[in-house]
Amino acid sequence: MPMTITEKILAAAAGKDSVKPGELINAKVDLVLANDITAPVAIKEFQKIGLTRVWDKERVALVPDHFTPNKDIKSAEQAKLVRDFAHSQELTNYFEVGRMGIEHCLLPEQGLVGPGDVVIGADSHTCTYGALGAFATGVGSTDLAAAMALGETWFKVPESLKFVYHGSLNKWVGGKDLILYTIGQIGVDGALYRAMEFCGEAIRRLSMDGRFTMCNMAIEAGGKNGIIEPDEITRQYVEGRAKRPYTFYTSDPDAVYAAVYEFDASKIEPQVAFPHLPENARPVSQAGQVEIHQAVIGSCTNGRMEDLRLAAQVLQGKKVNKRVRLIIIPGTQEIYRQAMREGLFEIFLDAGAVVSTPTCGPCLGGHMGILAKGERCIATTNRNFVGRMGHPESEVYLANPAVTAASAVTGRISHPEEVL
Amino acid sequence: MPMTITEKILAAAAGKDSVKPGELINAKVDLVLANDITAPVAIKEFQKIGLTRVWDKERVALVPDHFTPNKDIKSAEQAKLVRDFAHSQELTNYFEVGRMGIEHCLLPEQGLVGPGDVVIGADSHTCTYGALGAFATGVGSTDLAAAMALGETWFKVPESLKFVYHGSLNKWVGGKDLILYTIGQIGVDGALYRAMEFCGEAIRRLSMDGRFTMCNMAIEAGGKNGIIEPDEITRQYVEGRAKRPYTFYTSDPDAVYAAVYEFDASKIEPQVAFPHLPENARPVSQAGQVEIHQAVIGSCTNGRMEDLRLAAQVLQGKKVNKRVRLIIIPGTQEIYRQAMREGLFEIFLDAGAVVSTPTCGPCLGGHMGILAKGERCIATTNRNFVGRMGHPESEVYLANPAVTAASAVTGRISHPEEVL
Repeated sequence: MPMTITEKILAAAAGKDSVKPGELINAKVDLVLANDITAPVAIKEFQKIGLTRVWDKERVALVPDHFTPNKDIKSAEQAKLVRDFAHSQELTNYFEVGRMGIEHCLLPEQGLVGPGDVVIGADSHTCTYGALGAFATGVGSTDLAAAMALGETWFKVPESLKFVYHGSLNKWVGGKDLILYTIGQIGVDGALYRAMEFCGEAIRRLSMDGRFTMCNMAIEAGGKNGIIEPDEITRQYVEGRAKRPYTFYTSDPDAVYAAVYEFDASKIEPQVAFPHLPENARPVSQAGQVEIHQAVIGSCTNGRMEDLRLAAQVLQGKKVNKRVRLIIIPGTQEIYRQAMREGLFEIFLDAGAVVSTPTCGPCLGGHMGILAKGERCIATTNRNFVGRMGHPESEVYLANPAVTAASAVTGRISHPEEVL
Repeated sequence: MPMTITEKILAAAAGKDSVKPGELINAKVDLVLANDITAPVAIKEFQKIGLTRVWDKERVALVPDHFTPNKDIKSAEQAKLVRDFAHSQELTNYFEVGRMGIEHCLLPEQGLVGPGDVVIGADSHTCTYGALGAFATGVGSTDLAAAMALGETWFKVPESLKFVYHGSLNKWVGGKDLILYTIGQIGVDGALYRAMEFCGEAIRRLSMDGRFTMCNMAIEAGGKNGIIEPDEITRQYVEGRAKRPYTFYTSDPDAVYAAVYEFDASKIEPQVAFPHLPENARPVSQAGQVEIHQAVIGSCTNGRMEDLRLAAQVLQGKKVNKRVRLIIIPGTQEIYRQAMREGLFEIFLDAGAVVSTPTCGPCLGGHMGILAKGERCIATTNRNFVGRMGHPESEVYLANPAVTAASAVTGRISHPEEVL
């Protein structure tokens, strides 16, 4: 029976020859993940059910990345609960402040996720790992608690949607623009409980960082997961990192999709998603005059090396508009160090930006750049819901790192070419 | 009439030949300062009184350093109020996120405070600038509002206390240890409304950074101000920085002091102030076994280059204890950049520390490292009051940067020699 890559991974994890959409399966998971917001709920649930030990101390990753370094007493208590649990369970993959990063940047970097894996995380952007050809999806904290103890969970096999991107990308267009454009086309519920499989010439040429960005935002179209067939680019990324064996799955040529979308990538401009939904994407050339007060470059969506390099390319020799705060947040300590070594920090500091420790921070209205009433922020993050980054009357515009950097310089939403 | 340095500065600012302790004077101020916590109060007061323009747009410094980048909506609203006021008044010395630092590190660095100045700030640690031979003191926000409009304020001339430090400092002993030791000797109200004049051989050899640290904590003994006669070290610091002319004042040999304290500096060990008062200072050798969970190196007390270099000297090639978070916070963007260029960040990152953007942050329980119930932190900050850094049942131990770094490595309060 022909299967998609998503179906093949789930079949293997369920110990079956094949699965089909709609089928309920019990599947082994390769890794479970939670952060400082969701792990406390999962841990309390774990203890309430009377569970005592995790199924495998190397397969439970806990990353306190949302409100750390702790922003207040409540977040300190949450982080402590996670820390105490991690130490008492002797978890190998607990990542402390100073030795960590944003979960979805960190786990692939650390080789904890590989092609063919099944990963669940108590965080909606767990779908990021699909970029490696893994099945990865967000779950609730209760489901996570059970999986921490059992090493398995249930799924309803999703239908798959195929997104084919023909042609080559224009300069300043990357994974962020492709996914914003796609969500703009299908809407925020356009992929509800479906696997979003990204393919085509433009995807094959996309860097791993660009692929992570795309799969990261599958959930913003309601997708169960985002996924890209692994290839040579994937292999280069996982070689030397992977802590476990991995398997490259690919979709059968005659696999069945609920729908196939085809786009001419060469026609896509840098995109900006206007408030208050990611589907409000439009080409930056049609953004009009939108004055901004803050710009954020970072997050699990765009806090990787390629993102920082793009921002630096735009900011080199430029100054941030005096009315704008530009906050740059490398995704992990490793990315932080690498960006520093490459001289990107010098460029950011010269421009008048501030470089934060790795944290989810402002993306979800946590800390490190919360908005006041009436303020507008352009951000490389993934959600621009009402009040997402602060005051209910503030606004978030989603864009790629180059557009965000350019906008920080001009003080209004701008194409990178405007400042170069 | 013989006068102390404090009296001479105040006399000059009041346009008088001499002043004496207890006298009420009206004095011109050279600079007024407020931050994102106190400026909003001062600005509202300013507007309530019906004032419209500041007396001099180059003499009002506003520094949003406490809860920035904004940690929540409330702090964002505060910062916006300050920003809007600064722009509407066209203030030269408004310092935005990314172009700023902790106020008491920033203003001297920017040459906005010089020897002989009278500076008031709506922040208790304004006394820091006494290190330059200026009279600087904290005031309430209402007094500040009036001074913003008038460029003058009233003072009761304080009596002076003289602190003489004979001999040379031992290795790993610096300004922080001298001031903690001193507060340990005289208590937290030992200098109530008095000028603390620091002098003697050990002070003459102390770097500017060490002097800033000492004067910074004068308020922790209740002092009206801390002050050190300017000398060649002062001159080297202010030359090339000072944005205004400055005057070197010195105390007359027969000036009158309320008391004179003499210490043998060579007998002083690195100090640790135990909870919950800075006066609970004891030599680190008598600290006993105190396990810590967090270590903070930074603040207006110890967030300068010398502090970061000392920390790096201890951390080089070492690892932070796995149970400890080490948070390092350079005092200004310039210090951040310089520390990065000197390779200190590489040492910090290798050790497993995290480097924050410049902010007061955890020192006052703001953000970037708040403590949970039962947690203990060793910090280079200035106050260890109950709940200062978070939960009312958390504890803060004050120390110098080398002791703090060493403790981060061992996981308990330690002398630097223990890890070297």
